[in-house]
Amino acid sequence: MRPSLASFAAALETPPSGPGAYGIRVAHQAAAIIAVAAMVLDTQSTLAHSYGGILSVVVWVFAVLFAVEYGLRLALAPWAHWAHRDEPWRARWHWATNFHGIVDLAGALPVLTLAVGASPAHAQLYGAAWIVKLVAYAPGLELVGRVLRNARKSMGGLFLGFCMVLIVSATIAYEAEGSVQPDTFGSIPSAMWWAVVTVTTVGYGDAVPVTLVGRVVAAMVMVCGIGMFALWTAILVTGFSYEMRRREFLRTWDLVARVPYFHGLGAGTIADVAQLLRPSDFAAGTVVVRRGQPGDCMYFIVTGEITIDIKPPVTLGPGEFFGELALITGEPRSATVVAKTACELLHLDLADFRQLTARHPDVAKQIEAEASRRRRDGVVRRETLGA
Amino acid sequence: MRPSLASFAAALETPPSGPGAYGIRVAHQAAAIIAVAAMVLDTQSTLAHSYGGILSVVVWVFAVLFAVEYGLRLALAPWAHWAHRDEPWRARWHWATNFHGIVDLAGALPVLTLAVGASPAHAQLYGAAWIVKLVAYAPGLELVGRVLRNARKSMGGLFLGFCMVLIVSATIAYEAEGSVQPDTFGSIPSAMWWAVVTVTTVGYGDAVPVTLVGRVVAAMVMVCGIGMFALWTAILVTGFSYEMRRREFLRTWDLVARVPYFHGLGAGTIADVAQLLRPSDFAAGTVVVRRGQPGDCMYFIVTGEITIDIKPPVTLGPGEFFGELALITGEPRSATVVAKTACELLHLDLADFRQLTARHPDVAKQIEAEASRRRRDGVVRRETLGA
Amino acid sequence: MRPSLASFAAALETPPSGPGAYGIRVAHQAAAIIAVAAMVLDTQSTLAHSYGGILSVVVWVFAVLFAVEYGLRLALAPWAHWAHRDEPWRARWHWATNFHGIVDLAGALPVLTLAVGASPAHAQLYGAAWIVKLVAYAPGLELVGRVLRNARKSMGGLFLGFCMVLIVSATIAYEAEGSVQPDTFGSIPSAMWWAVVTVTTVGYGDAVPVTLVGRVVAAMVMVCGIGMFALWTAILVTGFSYEMRRREFLRTWDLVARVPYFHGLGAGTIADVAQLLRPSDFAAGTVVVRRGQPGDCMYFIVTGEITIDIKPPVTLGPGEFFGELALITGEPRSATVVAKTACELLHLDLADFRQLTARHPDVAKQIEAEASRRRRDGVVRRETLGA
Amino acid sequence: MRPSLASFAAALETPPSGPGAYGIRVAHQAAAIIAVAAMVLDTQSTLAHSYGGILSVVVWVFAVLFAVEYGLRLALAPWAHWAHRDEPWRARWHWATNFHGIVDLAGALPVLTLAVGASPAHAQLYGAAWIVKLVAYAPGLELVGRVLRNARKSMGGLFLGFCMVLIVSATIAYEAEGSVQPDTFGSIPSAMWWAVVTVTTVGYGDAVPVTLVGRVVAAMVMVCGIGMFALWTAILVTGFSYEMRRREFLRTWDLVARVPYFHGLGAGTIADVAQLLRPSDFAAGTVVVRRGQPGDCMYFIVTGEITIDIKPPVTLGPGEFFGELALITGEPRSATVVAKTACELLHLDLADFRQLTARHPDVAKQIEAEASRRRRDGVVRRETLGA
Repeated sequence: MRPSLASFAAALETPPSGPGAYGIRVAHQAAAIIAVAAMVLDTQSTLAHSYGGILSVVVWVFAVLFAVEYGLRLALAPWAHWAHRDEPWRARWHWATNFHGIVDLAGALPVLTLAVGASPAHAQLYGAAWIVKLVAYAPGLELVGRVLRNARKSMGGLFLGFCMVLIVSATIAYEAEGSVQPDTFGSIPSAMWWAVVTVTTVGYGDAVPVTLVGRVVAAMVMVCGIGMFALWTAILVTGFSYEMRRREFLRTWDLVARVPYFHGLGAGTIADVAQLLRPSDFAAGTVVVRRGQPGDCMYFIVTGEITIDIKPPVTLGPGEFFGELALITGEPRSATVVAKTACELLHLDLADFRQLTARHPDVAKQIEAEASRRRRDGVVRRETLGA
Repeated sequence: MRPSLASFAAALETPPSGPGAYGIRVAHQAAAIIAVAAMVLDTQSTLAHSYGGILSVVVWVFAVLFAVEYGLRLALAPWAHWAHRDEPWRARWHWATNFHGIVDLAGALPVLTLAVGASPAHAQLYGAAWIVKLVAYAPGLELVGRVLRNARKSMGGLFLGFCMVLIVSATIAYEAEGSVQPDTFGSIPSAMWWAVVTVTTVGYGDAVPVTLVGRVVAAMVMVCGIGMFALWTAILVTGFSYEMRRREFLRTWDLVARVPYFHGLGAGTIADVAQLLRPSDFAAGTVVVRRGQPGDCMYFIVTGEITIDIKPPVTLGPGEFFGELALITGEPRSATVVAKTACELLHLDLADFRQLTARHPDVAKQIEAEASRRRRDGVVRRETLGA
Repeated sequence: MRPSLASFAAALETPPSGPGAYGIRVAHQAAAIIAVAAMVLDTQSTLAHSYGGILSVVVWVFAVLFAVEYGLRLALAPWAHWAHRDEPWRARWHWATNFHGIVDLAGALPVLTLAVGASPAHAQLYGAAWIVKLVAYAPGLELVGRVLRNARKSMGGLFLGFCMVLIVSATIAYEAEGSVQPDTFGSIPSAMWWAVVTVTTVGYGDAVPVTLVGRVVAAMVMVCGIGMFALWTAILVTGFSYEMRRREFLRTWDLVARVPYFHGLGAGTIADVAQLLRPSDFAAGTVVVRRGQPGDCMYFIVTGEITIDIKPPVTLGPGEFFGELALITGEPRSATVVAKTACELLHLDLADFRQLTARHPDVAKQIEAEASRRRRDGVVRRETLGA
Repeated sequence: MRPSLASFAAALETPPSGPGAYGIRVAHQAAAIIAVAAMVLDTQSTLAHSYGGILSVVVWVFAVLFAVEYGLRLALAPWAHWAHRDEPWRARWHWATNFHGIVDLAGALPVLTLAVGASPAHAQLYGAAWIVKLVAYAPGLELVGRVLRNARKSMGGLFLGFCMVLIVSATIAYEAEGSVQPDTFGSIPSAMWWAVVTVTTVGYGDAVPVTLVGRVVAAMVMVCGIGMFALWTAILVTGFSYEMRRREFLRTWDLVARVPYFHGLGAGTIADVAQLLRPSDFAAGTVVVRRGQPGDCMYFIVTGEITIDIKPPVTLGPGEFFGELALITGEPRSATVVAKTACELLHLDLADFRQLTARHPDVAKQIEAEASRRRRDGVVRRETLGA
């Protein structure tokens, strides 16, 4: 029985790649979107009156599905993760407390709260947590998380400063405005509501100082708010630009190392070339280069295949490059290039092509040799075909 | 008949350069501004009462003009674009779906909606789309577009996070405030209006939480809003600074390659020099350098001519340079220099001139040799002229 | 008696390091948090009614404690700071006017104001200053201070521009709106309140222009506000990124210099390596590397010890490195590594490891030699142990 | 008579440097501050009742003074600027249209408007323009101006986008909300007031959409507003960081070139060293280095003199350096150093000192040689003095 369980568990697991995985993920995300939308609209009385029944059914169908998914995954965790197959409860605990487990727990919340005894109308509000299923797999999330983690010390210090501004300004505003406007500034916690609305520059206008002292403090709080916001931005900009450089370099290196064309280069040259190339993905059928457009970059194929739309069409595969002619001659693209399969390409900008030419003349020479060979071949082929 | 059609079609096309093209573009943009202004003012009842008739006439004159323009361009597309002259409908479809076609379609919207049966007062509101005619040719648009395209993944992830904050906070606020303020927090969609007004720090004040839970959530939403805004800025700053570097380098390289003075340099040195020079444009008649001002840069002429305002005046053309004396001696400018025609100049900052001197002593030596030759010539000429 | 006083004074001083110091600082900060919270909540009449007596007692207990602390430290300053032991009053003055003295003075404010004759309810509001005790020791504060100090000239110029916008716009708004809305725009100081609320984009809505001139000015003020905010951010981003680079480099250099592994390198190579390594701290018992995770960095130990969780466990100390296997082979981590004591580690990213390999092949060769020695040893050990 | 006029004209001109110039500038700025403050407070009816007469007198005294100053400068322009002494009216026109002339014209505005026939109460409002006298000489102004000038194209494109968002959103909001809220959305210009308040995230709350379409458009306008703000910031950050680098480098180069210590270095090394040193100013009597503090930088003197506070005190002048001991040994400062006169110093950070050591061992060797000579001298001197 174990093998079948293991394969079922594996099928449940979102695999890291492959077209099946893509379909499952899209279906999963569509389900989350529909379920959240139904839950949100069901609270609108005008809609609930007409479609309330249907909306509620949709919400609970998905709620049950997500709960079943959570239960199955939890139960099958020992089989899905080979590492702990001999300690099933430890494997379950491990899965339940890791990132995927917590995201899936969010999916099961409505059913769990209903089971605990909440009313259905109340329990279905926990469906808002389904949105986590979308966000958890957003592409940039890990990057943003990394930036925030690196900057946590500066952000923590800034947050303390934020609290200080809140407390000190709320205390002064309470002292200055408390007797004039007891409803809105009658206690420090009330005044803190005003302070937080002001320091974030939201400014609802439900609490507004009227005394001179209150207004001077308010002006200082506003300026502090803008200043803290600017510092916050400065911290994130610094962290983000570091992470982006690091990440781009790493991904490009991996790709460069997979292009046979660069195999002969030393590590020093690869490090250099990797800083010039930039990766980009193309879905199957996408036009990579359109005939007649100005040519501002050339491409190296890492994975997948592309078709050059000449007669007869030419197909290039991993390790080959195209688009170099327009860079060398400065003329518009002479042919349209379409991605035959999903491709990972490295593109080399005109600006970077020139830097490469300047710094690594040998690489440039190889590209030009290949380019002139192609032009000659093109002529020959056209003559042969009578084109 | 075809040749005359083709030349008419070509005249309709906004040519990429030349003084005629400039005039046509300015007239086109002025027409768009006047038409939009008339449309906007015509909705103001006080003005419409006095000038309504005139304003409406202006709006519809331009509306018809823009519609005729669209019709003509669409009809003549096969003759304007030689590539598809033998397949007229494909050429028209191609034009109608590309950038220019869509921009011109925006111009024809009021007439099209009127034709479809809308009332004139309603149809003329579509004239707001005429503003697209201005924006579509704004100089920085392509740069901004490129930055946004490169950052689309991170921005997409951030947008998902934005949606998550909206939905989760609206759900909690609905739960906390719904019974207290049924008008503004009575359903999750209503509460989302509050959430979006808060997270963007707009804060109209039409919906304000009053319960403790609602206010704590509001404070967290405000801080999240500022944080997401800061991240957004961080992403754009990183992308923008990359694009600016790339673009500046590319343009400068093109210009450097057209200055005969740099022809003898190797590609490595050109790449280096191109990072030091910065391009700038001057209209005919503009003062480039004013006598007596401090001299903080020298200029290389790429295109156009300049006149040095000494007696007798000296004219310099493409490939020559000026302003180096002030850099070498540190004295103020000894003569005024005026652009005789529209010029593209490369300017070399004092800071960068020093870096150039340090890194490429041969280039510096040539500049100094030329400078001392000029000083000697100046002396000779003055003596000859008796000045 | 002097020795005992000196040691008592030393015990009062927050020592720069050691576990005792950490405990004292945490207790100190917890006291500040509790005291401020009690002070804030005591102003809320609903709470004050039920718990007011207790809250007030808590506030005043801490107020007295902080005042006693200030008094003791001031009195004992000559013994705590050996430099001025022979001039006690100068030592006290020196301490009272330096950073620590001012922070501790903030703690004594409530008791001091009570002593001066204020009512207790009023005096306890000065307890808001206790928050300074938290913020003063925030980790990023000195960095932020340094950035602000470096940017003070640009910030000063910007602040003047801010004042100019306020005064000019308030004058125009007063002229335009003064007769229409005498309550809110009836004098320039009143109009300045509107201007500051608008330029900071807070927008309470208590003062809103209604005339055409007033609204046009308001629109310009809003755009100026956003522009100034953006400039402010630009100044801080530039300063912050400079400081961060400088600081990271400095700390890493100190650590690199303490790793025996790098002792043989020249200063040039160390400067290079220091730019690649990034410091990180781990508390005792933390998992540094988890078995089965992807390996994206290797670690050098600066201080402390780590345990590699294999059988039998291996302990590594300062100057040794680990985690290099996953970098070289690209496989997941083969063992879990736990910090045995609190550790300072330098981690070398995958991206940077490749740059190191490219730029300093000798360092890379040593790491690989050590790695292959370990693998061989591992095999031998496992065979010996029969594992 | 001409010589005396010329010297009087010269005395009126704000000279570029010297202690007299400093005093004149401070007096000038103080006058502007007092005059603006009096003008602002005079509009406050409560104050005007009590002190109105005095405030008005103050305002008009300064108004007349500033007008007289403008008249004198305009009249004497031919004598102050030798270049055009033979064409007095051209010289006056030149002065009146340049930066200083326009700033001084702002000072004369109240008297000019009074002369034109305005009422005194109205004319004195033009005194708000006096604030320009402060801002015009703010230190960072030229830098900010340069950044804005460089970024004018991108900013212009962004401004067009801003206008497009305003017009399109106002048109849709007018269509959607016009019939529901005719007071606030009854015409497109009215709706544009709402749009500008929303897109800048000010959000007064005087105009708030209530229909579904209006709210969806509002949400999109808010997000656009934040996005445009972020782009604006990105443009300025990029420009600012470029200008800061350029400016710092330029100023440091000038200073480095004036330190005899660096005269022997080649231009390449100077360019390198100039990137490591950072300039800072100290007023006479300021403490540059305090004994016992940690030493994180050394200083080179460019202009002025410093005193090392040992017995007997040592004075160092331009071209000498100090503070290197703490960098080399890592111990706290061994002596206090005070600026004897106003000084320009170049400081070399610990981080940069290490980079210098690594990249230019010869410079480092010279510094260490000098340092060890000093230590030896110090010992000798102390022995001689019996200290």
